[in-house]
Amino acid sequence: MRAIERLSTEISKSGVKKLVIVHGGGSYGHPLAKKYSLVEGFRNAGQLRGLCETHLAMLTLNRLIVEALLERGVAAAPVSPLSCAVTRRGRLVRLELSPVKRLLELGVVPVLFGDVVMDEELGFTILSGDQLIAALSMELNADRIVLGLDVDGLCDKDPKQHPDAELIEEISPEELERLLPGLGGSGGIDVTGGMRGKMAEMLAPAKRGIPVFLVNAAKPGLVLKALRGESTPGTLIACEGRRSR
Amino acid sequence: MRAIERLSTEISKSGVKKLVIVHGGGSYGHPLAKKYSLVEGFRNAGQLRGLCETHLAMLTLNRLIVEALLERGVAAAPVSPLSCAVTRRGRLVRLELSPVKRLLELGVVPVLFGDVVMDEELGFTILSGDQLIAALSMELNADRIVLGLDVDGLCDKDPKQHPDAELIEEISPEELERLLPGLGGSGGIDVTGGMRGKMAEMLAPAKRGIPVFLVNAAKPGLVLKALRGESTPGTLIACEGRRSR
Repeated sequence: MRAIERLSTEISKSGVKKLVIVHGGGSYGHPLAKKYSLVEGFRNAGQLRGLCETHLAMLTLNRLIVEALLERGVAAAPVSPLSCAVTRRGRLVRLELSPVKRLLELGVVPVLFGDVVMDEELGFTILSGDQLIAALSMELNADRIVLGLDVDGLCDKDPKQHPDAELIEEISPEELERLLPGLGGSGGIDVTGGMRGKMAEMLAPAKRGIPVFLVNAAKPGLVLKALRGESTPGTLIACEGRRSR
Repeated sequence: MRAIERLSTEISKSGVKKLVIVHGGGSYGHPLAKKYSLVEGFRNAGQLRGLCETHLAMLTLNRLIVEALLERGVAAAPVSPLSCAVTRRGRLVRLELSPVKRLLELGVVPVLFGDVVMDEELGFTILSGDQLIAALSMELNADRIVLGLDVDGLCDKDPKQHPDAELIEEISPEELERLLPGLGGSGGIDVTGGMRGKMAEMLAPAKRGIPVFLVNAAKPGLVLKALRGESTPGTLIACEGRRSR
């Protein structure tokens, strides 16, 4: 809760006008998604209750964030991926974004989240917040992506396995693509692919020319600076020509 | 709350397989929608907070209903109109229903609601649960509509103004259309048109051959009977050929 309040304050202070927020499952969505094996899709009717419970848990987290923003003067509205997205084998094939576009025009911040969604082949699955961020940034022609993490940024190899791993301050999407196989996958309760999964999703927007800033959201002030476009410690993924900051 | 619990029990007992639930705003949505004049659309930035608060209030009510259903063994999932519908001057022009169709295929009951939604001309407005019911029933080729009310059904004139008004047990859509101007409009906190508004929405599905049952949901057991297709006191709106029950 303290992190939600602090980040809401940073978002409010940043003064960014057209902002879309996407959050993950954290301790709300992941344990339930794992318990009911939701990533793998429909196997038995017992999972259906789990699907509903997982979505409700995500709505609970979403509401905490939306209310924290409202309290700080940011008009923010929940947008539910289960209500507007459909995947096929885990990849987005439908994403109704008219409401999101119109919320932005009005000056309301849409707040989306990783969610259990309907899947054309699997019945249902988990749509990661990272995949959503990539799709939204391209559909909405975003100026940039600020990806808040609980680490300082991207390292040249998995720091959990390699103590000599070094933080990368800037990288092109092509270089990132070459690094991908060496990055860490899911660990613990994360059901959506860890750092390798995140970076794989960020490749497409980065290649389209949307700079991606990775910042440590656990360190106070870094998200605020990144939103303001100020120089921040972290990793910038950007095409050669756009690497100025 | 007692009414939500009782109706959830009736829905659970009915055993209806493919069911979509749509609820209204009640004491949750209507007062806020009225306070911020949301039906009229965007007038000033102060309404944006009201838009967010109204939607959150509807999500609160929606959650009470979904959780009451889950507790009774009905897998039910919230579907948020703000996330999947857009209107133009208050009439639906976009309604993404792929998730609803797939939830039904899986055996999950989608639970929608009257909501504040984005509007192509007004900025935003209120989409009534009644308009949603009509659109959903036609898009999904519903077998029938059960419309739960707090009165016994449709009278030949507004009973609030005419003490001699009589309950109509059966009526064709054409006859209903002729009656419409004499029916009661909005009263009190209802922002979406009262009985006349409801009946105007029900005309289109009824004309397409989808029977509409009006039952008093405040009287225990009537929704259960109507869902089971049993004879119930109330009003049946149906084309001549389909008036058997």
